[in-house]
Amino acid sequence: MKLLVINGNMTQAITDVCANAAREVASPGTEVVSATGTFGPQVIGSRSENALAQHGMLELAAKHAPGCDAVVIAVSMDTGLPALRELLSIPVVGMTEAGALMACTVGARFAVVTFGRRHIPTYGELIDSYGLGSRCVGVEAIDAGPSAALADPRGAVQALAGLATKAIEERGAEVILMAGAVAAGWQRDLQALLPVPVVEGVRCATLMAESLVRMKMPKPTVGSYSSPGIRAVGGVDPALVALFGGTARG
Amino acid sequence: MKLLVINGNMTQAITDVCANAAREVASPGTEVVSATGTFGPQVIGSRSENALAQHGMLELAAKHAPGCDAVVIAVSMDTGLPALRELLSIPVVGMTEAGALMACTVGARFAVVTFGRRHIPTYGELIDSYGLGSRCVGVEAIDAGPSAALADPRGAVQALAGLATKAIEERGAEVILMAGAVAAGWQRDLQALLPVPVVEGVRCATLMAESLVRMKMPKPTVGSYSSPGIRAVGGVDPALVALFGGTARG
Amino acid sequence: MKLLVINGNMTQAITDVCANAAREVASPGTEVVSATGTFGPQVIGSRSENALAQHGMLELAAKHAPGCDAVVIAVSMDTGLPALRELLSIPVVGMTEAGALMACTVGARFAVVTFGRRHIPTYGELIDSYGLGSRCVGVEAIDAGPSAALADPRGAVQALAGLATKAIEERGAEVILMAGAVAAGWQRDLQALLPVPVVEGVRCATLMAESLVRMKMPKPTVGSYSSPGIRAVGGVDPALVALFGGTARG
Amino acid sequence: MKLLVINGNMTQAITDVCANAAREVASPGTEVVSATGTFGPQVIGSRSENALAQHGMLELAAKHAPGCDAVVIAVSMDTGLPALRELLSIPVVGMTEAGALMACTVGARFAVVTFGRRHIPTYGELIDSYGLGSRCVGVEAIDAGPSAALADPRGAVQALAGLATKAIEERGAEVILMAGAVAAGWQRDLQALLPVPVVEGVRCATLMAESLVRMKMPKPTVGSYSSPGIRAVGGVDPALVALFGGTARG
Amino acid sequence: MKLLVINGNMTQAITDVCANAAREVASPGTEVVSATGTFGPQVIGSRSENALAQHGMLELAAKHAPGCDAVVIAVSMDTGLPALRELLSIPVVGMTEAGALMACTVGARFAVVTFGRRHIPTYGELIDSYGLGSRCVGVEAIDAGPSAALADPRGAVQALAGLATKAIEERGAEVILMAGAVAAGWQRDLQALLPVPVVEGVRCATLMAESLVRMKMPKPTVGSYSSPGIRAVGGVDPALVALFGGTARG
Amino acid sequence: MKLLVINGNMTQAITDVCANAAREVASPGTEVVSATGTFGPQVIGSRSENALAQHGMLELAAKHAPGCDAVVIAVSMDTGLPALRELLSIPVVGMTEAGALMACTVGARFAVVTFGRRHIPTYGELIDSYGLGSRCVGVEAIDAGPSAALADPRGAVQALAGLATKAIEERGAEVILMAGAVAAGWQRDLQALLPVPVVEGVRCATLMAESLVRMKMPKPTVGSYSSPGIRAVGGVDPALVALFGGTARG
Repeated sequence: MKLLVINGNMTQAITDVCANAAREVASPGTEVVSATGTFGPQVIGSRSENALAQHGMLELAAKHAPGCDAVVIAVSMDTGLPALRELLSIPVVGMTEAGALMACTVGARFAVVTFGRRHIPTYGELIDSYGLGSRCVGVEAIDAGPSAALADPRGAVQALAGLATKAIEERGAEVILMAGAVAAGWQRDLQALLPVPVVEGVRCATLMAESLVRMKMPKPTVGSYSSPGIRAVGGVDPALVALFGGTARG
Repeated sequence: MKLLVINGNMTQAITDVCANAAREVASPGTEVVSATGTFGPQVIGSRSENALAQHGMLELAAKHAPGCDAVVIAVSMDTGLPALRELLSIPVVGMTEAGALMACTVGARFAVVTFGRRHIPTYGELIDSYGLGSRCVGVEAIDAGPSAALADPRGAVQALAGLATKAIEERGAEVILMAGAVAAGWQRDLQALLPVPVVEGVRCATLMAESLVRMKMPKPTVGSYSSPGIRAVGGVDPALVALFGGTARG
Repeated sequence: MKLLVINGNMTQAITDVCANAAREVASPGTEVVSATGTFGPQVIGSRSENALAQHGMLELAAKHAPGCDAVVIAVSMDTGLPALRELLSIPVVGMTEAGALMACTVGARFAVVTFGRRHIPTYGELIDSYGLGSRCVGVEAIDAGPSAALADPRGAVQALAGLATKAIEERGAEVILMAGAVAAGWQRDLQALLPVPVVEGVRCATLMAESLVRMKMPKPTVGSYSSPGIRAVGGVDPALVALFGGTARG
Repeated sequence: MKLLVINGNMTQAITDVCANAAREVASPGTEVVSATGTFGPQVIGSRSENALAQHGMLELAAKHAPGCDAVVIAVSMDTGLPALRELLSIPVVGMTEAGALMACTVGARFAVVTFGRRHIPTYGELIDSYGLGSRCVGVEAIDAGPSAALADPRGAVQALAGLATKAIEERGAEVILMAGAVAAGWQRDLQALLPVPVVEGVRCATLMAESLVRMKMPKPTVGSYSSPGIRAVGGVDPALVALFGGTARG
Repeated sequence: MKLLVINGNMTQAITDVCANAAREVASPGTEVVSATGTFGPQVIGSRSENALAQHGMLELAAKHAPGCDAVVIAVSMDTGLPALRELLSIPVVGMTEAGALMACTVGARFAVVTFGRRHIPTYGELIDSYGLGSRCVGVEAIDAGPSAALADPRGAVQALAGLATKAIEERGAEVILMAGAVAAGWQRDLQALLPVPVVEGVRCATLMAESLVRMKMPKPTVGSYSSPGIRAVGGVDPALVALFGGTARG
Repeated sequence: MKLLVINGNMTQAITDVCANAAREVASPGTEVVSATGTFGPQVIGSRSENALAQHGMLELAAKHAPGCDAVVIAVSMDTGLPALRELLSIPVVGMTEAGALMACTVGARFAVVTFGRRHIPTYGELIDSYGLGSRCVGVEAIDAGPSAALADPRGAVQALAGLATKAIEERGAEVILMAGAVAAGWQRDLQALLPVPVVEGVRCATLMAESLVRMKMPKPTVGSYSSPGIRAVGGVDPALVALFGGTARG
């Protein structure tokens, strides 16, 4: 089985962290390949960069998904998830989607912990969009954004542990969903500090993608996730034009 | 006051219909200008085209919003709404958002009627994302997509009226929210056939945008809709790079 | 266009504050007229006074709505809103309804701030009744009721700003809906103290009412907001008897 | 124990039906007294009549509650319930409130059946306001309003049974809540035709009111149902002025 | 009327407390009998003991319900409630179910206070399962479990009062639902310390069960609470085999 | 890895079907063992049999879980799930829980199809208890219960396909969750007849259990799923007494 891990921002280091997380849990027979954005945001840290990165995610999938069995979205806003699930004929799983779903199997309610307080509402909206709002006690975020966190990983893990502890004690969180692709490498460090399971999205998405492949889950032929058919798009990469079923008009 | 109406697909005719709808209700002193997408989907008719068009919406705003007092999104999926509301310092209103909010003031519950059955879940998700799910009795769609509808407007209006009537009689809809930018010109024709108010999004968004300007609603300086600050983006139009606060790196 | 602003309590000063707020944002061609309750509560400060004032609101509308194009309810409990929307053939908008709807266009979630802690559940119920509970992070109230607030406006504004700041920092409010008709005159003062938009209901209702008129929104002929037809009522003002379609039996 | 059954419309026959329903289930030691509205709507058949009747309900309670141990609201819109629960120091229970709560103890989900299709949304809103929306599969109504139903009780019961059967078979209703005070006398007839329990509100409210008295449930001294204290009201019946704690200014 | 109070754990003292609470409010003509578990958990203090006790509850009902008019479940997790409501032909009411429903008639929103912090999510889930989540501001629990509480009742009541006060002041609770069968005897003590009504489940269930009997609420013959018919079960008490409609196979 | 598949009813054939389904998708290195109930219901076909079977599930786990890495609950009501997740120190996944979660990754909303109309509300309640109610368009059931279905598998599959098609066309289901352990063997047959993915719970639970093991998800030490500690239980199998941490008292 061949899994594609795609990261819509232009930071290779984050892609590598995520690909490693995927490899850590993937089955022996699974090959993990990855791709990083070539235009758009350097780091996705706002609603607008997330919007912009959707184009990049589509282009990455257009170029790299052929030959793969499933796609894992390694951006914690699950950028482009509905689009790719519709457009591709192989399973596509988002890291926060998968983390939230998996969290439901190990505790009554989970808290999301992440970087950057401005993301608190956006993660809440994402969890709500999956229909899982009632399973989530809330989102907590450290003040520092992803870049600052990367500069001081030890401090970031300590800060995340502090937020998680507060969510456990004050809001009754029984699972911690660690959001933010940069943190995919810190799951074990954070777990060591906490009394409840710490769920990390890339690992969950990798395993759910593998599961869908193993169950031979078919592409629907009706509904909002069936193929949209041949659609005319212009001014974008020929691979993307082709994915939309037309011929390149570059 | 100067209002910018932007349409993220590449079909000028749809932009024109929407701009005319905006002009129909705008105050005497309001100038309505408009812009059409220059790349991406010809028509937005799927989740993936909607994702792709977000880039185009950002670029359109980057190029055309300067000098305007507010922006109206003339795509019925409200493409790019959260991004533009965050990125710009002037009010931004989506046509379906505004239509749904305004519908709440004229009846107990509204139904959405639109083109293309595959959009039923996506409109439902959009309404839910605004927290208005409990005010909506459901989404009804004619089989034909927007292009077919444009080819036979009279037939499309008749079909929409049939769906609306069903929603009124069977689900208790007390307002009809007509979704689909192509239909912005048919509001009066549809209204003539129905016993309850027919709400059309571009008009509503125009009036809400005017209202926000008239109330001098300020840009927040904290929270998820405050400016994201200077963000590094690459490989996109210089105007968009500039909007993200950096200098062009094209 | 002629807008009627009605206040169901017997305090003329509150009516005047609200009428002025309406005039501040109304279009040049709009005339704002107002009316104050002639019986019932001096100030609406409880569930029971709110119930009692419904009769007064109906009578005020019966006497003053003829000749007007729309009605704005200038009581922050939106007293009589469903009744008047049903009974009259012109648009009727409530100040808290309009404020809550408009708040949805400028931030992810709003907080309500008001006077008198006993109103916290009742505002919560009102927002829930509009289906907007998920957009509201909560209601905060200063201890003092409206009368005490009027006696010390500067102190009241400071106290409201404190509550609003708490809601912004602790609950993630991105918009503040200032409830309480007495506060309609303090919007600018409160806005000056806060980093997020402050929404005031009378202004919003005025603009939404104007918008509905401009869109020529028709009266429904079916459903729970269609006219109830001729209904026999007795022992009330002849104008109200007439509004219910019968002949006066006073 | 002495229970007051109040009906806010001016139709004595409906009051009598309800008082009899109350007596049918009340404990041997319980005396049931009743009172009928003296002004306002002849029959409450719209949102506006319901609003108007709130004044009448308050006046009835002001005149008749003294000396009673609890109040049952015998109007199926539970007219005035929050107001009276706040204002009086004895338990107050609404017929539809009690019916809905009791229905929860005999089946998974209930349907409401009633008279007049325009009431479908209003009953839905009422059930939602009690937080019981998820226990209710919907509201069904025969076309005829209460007056027509009274003219042909046998036909009305047959029609209600038809609606109830549909709700049982198509929506999975496991309990039928019969709404509409006029129907309080038909519970047994309707029950005879249906395979699931038929719950009638006046009986339920009577028993819940008795229960609250027997448990000596105290009046809260804080919160939105504590006494509002002395409130100035004018132009209303001296008994009502007195209930609001002031002196008559009639 | 004869009411059966059943307690699925093996602690007679708790049964006695609950039976006394039932007798305190039951009508003069009502006989209260009780039964205690003979196997399974000594005290129900976890999800797993609650699961195990369901067998015991069924067996107790099989042995003791014959000849009774209704059953009250005197375990605060309402252990076995759906099963017994389905299996028996007489009304069955759970203590926490009844307490939550009755709480809705005396305040806007209630808080649950109980023993043992690990039960906070489970009570929340129970209230949610009744569809009453929106009426509940939360669950508060003292650290000590039921056994410790029994050892120091005075201290337990003080601690519960502290939690309740916090829920009233910080979360706006207007009613306190005291959960935990061991506390059935302390309702009056707790009430004396609080400014809002304290609702105790056994009393409420007793009165609701009496009410259902008095209204002659019939057994449904369709739906998920109709009799499951003859079902083959083995390896359980002959009385239980018989209740399942088969003949003993021990 | 060693997975235990447990079935709480006494029908070995159903256990075998489920174990085979698990083996079909399990990783090469995973050993699947299974166990069948030894007392309680022959088939779980009602709320009461489900309640009774919880004891059996606990006993099965007590006897067979030692030495295993995870447990899959092969009863479509997920009988005993919360109890076993609390009591055991290894992952436990329910078949319907897993099916519902996995369904969320392949479509917007799913429908449940199953056997026996009386189960419609109970499956709805189960899905709601997982917080996934908004992702589920409803439950459809053929009249025949599991036993009748087993007698005519081909007919049962046809009937299920008919229901599924209706849910797809009329309610917009984009995924079908096939519930009912007896149907675990028919997934492929049903899939062949439908245009959207068919999700079967045992397979999903097997893969999610494997995933949790692979991620080394730890047992929480706080919260409602931490070990309840040593609990006194009596009159049950010594293995179960031991699991509750005490010594056998048989």
